[in-house]
Amino acid sequence: MALQGLLAHRDLRMTQISLIRLPSSFSPPSSWLSLRSGKQNKAVLAELTNNHSSTSSIQVQNHTPAEVAVVPTTTLELSPPIADRTQKDTVTTLDNDGPRNDTDGPSLSIIVVGATGELARSKIFPALFALFHKGCLPKNLHILGYSRSELSSESLKDMISEHLTCRVDHPHDCGETVKQFLSRVAYQSGGYDSGEKMSQLNTHLQKLEGNCIGNRIFYLSVPEEVLLEVASCVGRNAQSKSGWTRVIIEKPFGYDGQSSALQTKGLLTYLNESQIYRIDHRLGKDLVENLTVLRFSNLVFEPLWSRTHIRNVQVVLSEDWGIEGKGRYFDRYGIIRDIVQSHILQTIALFAMEPPVSLAGDDIRNEKVKVLRSMRRPILQDVVLGQYKASIAKDGKCRVPGYLDEADIPADSMTPTFVAAVTYIDNARWDDVPFLIKAGIGLIKHRVEIRIQFRDVPGNLYRDRCGQTVVGQATNELILQIQPDESIILKINNKVPGLGLQLDSSDLNLLYRDRYDVDIPDSYEHLIMDVIDGDNHLFIRSDELKATWDLLDPLLQEIEKHKVAPELYQFGGRGPIGAYYLGAKHGVRWADD
Amino acid sequence: MALQGLLAHRDLRMTQISLIRLPSSFSPPSSWLSLRSGKQNKAVLAELTNNHSSTSSIQVQNHTPAEVAVVPTTTLELSPPIADRTQKDTVTTLDNDGPRNDTDGPSLSIIVVGATGELARSKIFPALFALFHKGCLPKNLHILGYSRSELSSESLKDMISEHLTCRVDHPHDCGETVKQFLSRVAYQSGGYDSGEKMSQLNTHLQKLEGNCIGNRIFYLSVPEEVLLEVASCVGRNAQSKSGWTRVIIEKPFGYDGQSSALQTKGLLTYLNESQIYRIDHRLGKDLVENLTVLRFSNLVFEPLWSRTHIRNVQVVLSEDWGIEGKGRYFDRYGIIRDIVQSHILQTIALFAMEPPVSLAGDDIRNEKVKVLRSMRRPILQDVVLGQYKASIAKDGKCRVPGYLDEADIPADSMTPTFVAAVTYIDNARWDDVPFLIKAGIGLIKHRVEIRIQFRDVPGNLYRDRCGQTVVGQATNELILQIQPDESIILKINNKVPGLGLQLDSSDLNLLYRDRYDVDIPDSYEHLIMDVIDGDNHLFIRSDELKATWDLLDPLLQEIEKHKVAPELYQFGGRGPIGAYYLGAKHGVRWADD
Repeated sequence: MALQGLLAHRDLRMTQISLIRLPSSFSPPSSWLSLRSGKQNKAVLAELTNNHSSTSSIQVQNHTPAEVAVVPTTTLELSPPIADRTQKDTVTTLDNDGPRNDTDGPSLSIIVVGATGELARSKIFPALFALFHKGCLPKNLHILGYSRSELSSESLKDMISEHLTCRVDHPHDCGETVKQFLSRVAYQSGGYDSGEKMSQLNTHLQKLEGNCIGNRIFYLSVPEEVLLEVASCVGRNAQSKSGWTRVIIEKPFGYDGQSSALQTKGLLTYLNESQIYRIDHRLGKDLVENLTVLRFSNLVFEPLWSRTHIRNVQVVLSEDWGIEGKGRYFDRYGIIRDIVQSHILQTIALFAMEPPVSLAGDDIRNEKVKVLRSMRRPILQDVVLGQYKASIAKDGKCRVPGYLDEADIPADSMTPTFVAAVTYIDNARWDDVPFLIKAGIGLIKHRVEIRIQFRDVPGNLYRDRCGQTVVGQATNELILQIQPDESIILKINNKVPGLGLQLDSSDLNLLYRDRYDVDIPDSYEHLIMDVIDGDNHLFIRSDELKATWDLLDPLLQEIEKHKVAPELYQFGGRGPIGAYYLGAKHGVRWADD
Repeated sequence: MALQGLLAHRDLRMTQISLIRLPSSFSPPSSWLSLRSGKQNKAVLAELTNNHSSTSSIQVQNHTPAEVAVVPTTTLELSPPIADRTQKDTVTTLDNDGPRNDTDGPSLSIIVVGATGELARSKIFPALFALFHKGCLPKNLHILGYSRSELSSESLKDMISEHLTCRVDHPHDCGETVKQFLSRVAYQSGGYDSGEKMSQLNTHLQKLEGNCIGNRIFYLSVPEEVLLEVASCVGRNAQSKSGWTRVIIEKPFGYDGQSSALQTKGLLTYLNESQIYRIDHRLGKDLVENLTVLRFSNLVFEPLWSRTHIRNVQVVLSEDWGIEGKGRYFDRYGIIRDIVQSHILQTIALFAMEPPVSLAGDDIRNEKVKVLRSMRRPILQDVVLGQYKASIAKDGKCRVPGYLDEADIPADSMTPTFVAAVTYIDNARWDDVPFLIKAGIGLIKHRVEIRIQFRDVPGNLYRDRCGQTVVGQATNELILQIQPDESIILKINNKVPGLGLQLDSSDLNLLYRDRYDVDIPDSYEHLIMDVIDGDNHLFIRSDELKATWDLLDPLLQEIEKHKVAPELYQFGGRGPIGAYYLGAKHGVRWADD
């Protein structure tokens, strides 16, 4: 084949070839290097530039995610573009058959503490496998499970391999990849407070790392009550000497301001702020990250992004399922701590922040924390609590259990499963713009979205022809929909085609599913990649965490003090009626649809 | 049926009924009144309010185009909303079987002068029929053909009935409607300069009008050279004494400033400015009218609508066919007079005007003329002319004739079939924003659009990740596409779903065809309805016309003086290369796609 010939030809060093499109059928010999990205099987534009020096350099201009096959190692120096994370650390030889202690490039060890837990098995290991399968992990990779259970490495492999699916491409060679992945996996048991066992783990890791720079990620998937013990063991005994050590922590980040401050203080005893990655998997959704892209890479949004043009902002997270076996956890924490404290406040912060100095994690977190600190504390009078009650299913026969019927829930529980609240951001950009929050489970549908309602058109020439609502004219809306389908929708008024001058509200719509034939990665994959890259902007910094508790503590205390009873609502319904009155009080029509 | 019973019930006078949705299967008895709109067979929201007076009043709030069936005439007083033209003058009894001299409501006579011509047969009569079929014309309607040919009314009916198609709904009763329509049609022959014949016509019209107020529309579909004669005959002999008289005039509106001024002066001798409707059928497109709706009924566009955010505006009209038998006309006028002088300059004026005081025709025309007068005269150095040449068809066999091969074209013709030009609007809103114009025939595709390119994002955080073009970063664009498919597209940058942070330009898209299951009316229907309604904002006022010639005259004179040779281009290609250099000179990348 002509193209293979061209690429293989020794004269390549003397040639400048621009914009070569590789056919999908093209498969390079195994001695070649392969530069892989998240999306394979796609044509690629690769520009090969010759420097007339002894080594050629390759610059890959990735107009589409790419798989590039290039000339033998010896003659090459690879310089992938800085911008594209998927090219980073991903140079692997095609005959990639097991762990090795290569001397080129740092090694990465990912230690899953709590390896036998539900989260590890169902989310963490599958996410690691998916990243491995996509070629996003460095070749010098080690995965270690750690927990209290006495278990062999083989047993852990058996346990996790059940959950490894070939969601990603190349289903044909998935079995082989699973084998390769599992060959990197080992297990060590030990107590969560055992410094000794953690030192053993450290020794094992050092052996694996050899002379390489050894980077380590500890994913602490452990119950809240043992978190500090584990973190301190890791901090004292298992930090890498040669590379970085990062620690991922799962929710909850405390029960209230006080306990959260204690947790933070404990973590910071043995770790630095920059090592701590507080994960909220809901923030790993593409559209959350797209929020900053939309705002700051488009000219058309930023001029509208303020109190001058925006009437209100609604952040809605509604789930159509109940607590699903997480009764003990949920009843202790409730919907405000579970959803509002991190996910919703983080989303609002990303939405409302000022442009950061750069896209670096801490620059963005600096802006987020400013928003959180400018936010007005929600008061009880602006909050509606709800709890789903037993109801009859749609078929008219089955009784759907209420929250109080669920396992592990006390019969007199007042824990809210729904909250609607209004807050304001008292700064120059957002003064007087109500931010409405709605979060609940057991509701009519699975919906996660940010909805921006714009103000009325001043001096509207078409006012007689625009639809009216109780709270004003039908307005433009920008909807960033995260669930059920990722899409961006701009509602505009336009003329109905035909005679006459009738106005109608239509959608300018971008449905990701239609536009991108992409396997949208799981949030865990996304966030673990962020940790590997050291991009911490979607992780909650200690001062941000404090700010969120400062906001919510007074409300939570009032709810407890007054024993505020939640309004009961039908499972599968629209939630408490009170939410509508709350909206009306602030001049807002909820975007129910 | 319950609904029928409710509406028919005498107690309706005592009842207030809100938001009745009529099922499409609902058919009222023939004694009832029917209020019809352009779009039938659709559900309707009708609010019936009772005044506790002897007559009830009906207010129709038309959220969707509507067919409303309401209670018997005797108990009702109809008050359709002012806003909705489709309800105006459209009260017809269902047994609508022929012309009558009813005493209620004014009569409308439409006199097509030049009735046997191509335009009359293929466009004007079919448009009148479509309006009749939709119930948009008053019941007291008379249609008269007038021309030099000796012809019987029956012959005219035969001639035009060939072109009456049942494009509109209810194909089943189309034959019946054609019969009803033709029963309103009559013919009179007469010279275009015959005052006597026109007086006869006047007498005939008076007879038809009887005691009614008689409104008259004269559609002058005659060659340019006889236009003034006809107009003066009409003005002197055939104006209505009891109602209004409006005169529709077809292009060309003069050959240059001088001849146009003469034409205008002649017209204004016997007619008032408000009686003259200069028609350009290309302005009857829905999206042209939607331009004002988009700008003034949405909050999100107006803040962006200025030099602050808009980098350039492109108005493109390209046709994939040649001159198609109109050689004599086209070779005399050329593309600048044919397309730029009215269609493109009018579009720019509507696009760029300040918000008018109201939607009244003259308020809008006041703003349009201000734009035209602020526009900088295009100079020869900023204009590229082209003429299509003979080429080989895609099959590689046939020779596609060039412009010079067409019938009626002199072998040395220098008439341009393509023009690209740049102009500026020297006012506060648009200073320094290039307006690019491209108009041509014999090009690669049929495309009519307005494209707004926005400026770069200042301090763009994502600058390394945005696509670059020679003339700057990939920007947001708003595209108002008129042909081939009416749609509104907003191009935005967003994150490609998946790992990594790749940016991509995507479309927020509203394709009319998908959104509206509507038979989009022909431009002639649209514009004739405007004339009936006296809405003249899409028709060119004399001072607007003068402004356009003031703009183009110097350029046209220079082209003639210097005998500027057009750049030849392939039929079916992208037009002269010069257009790209012109764009580059003004820092603009043409939106070719």
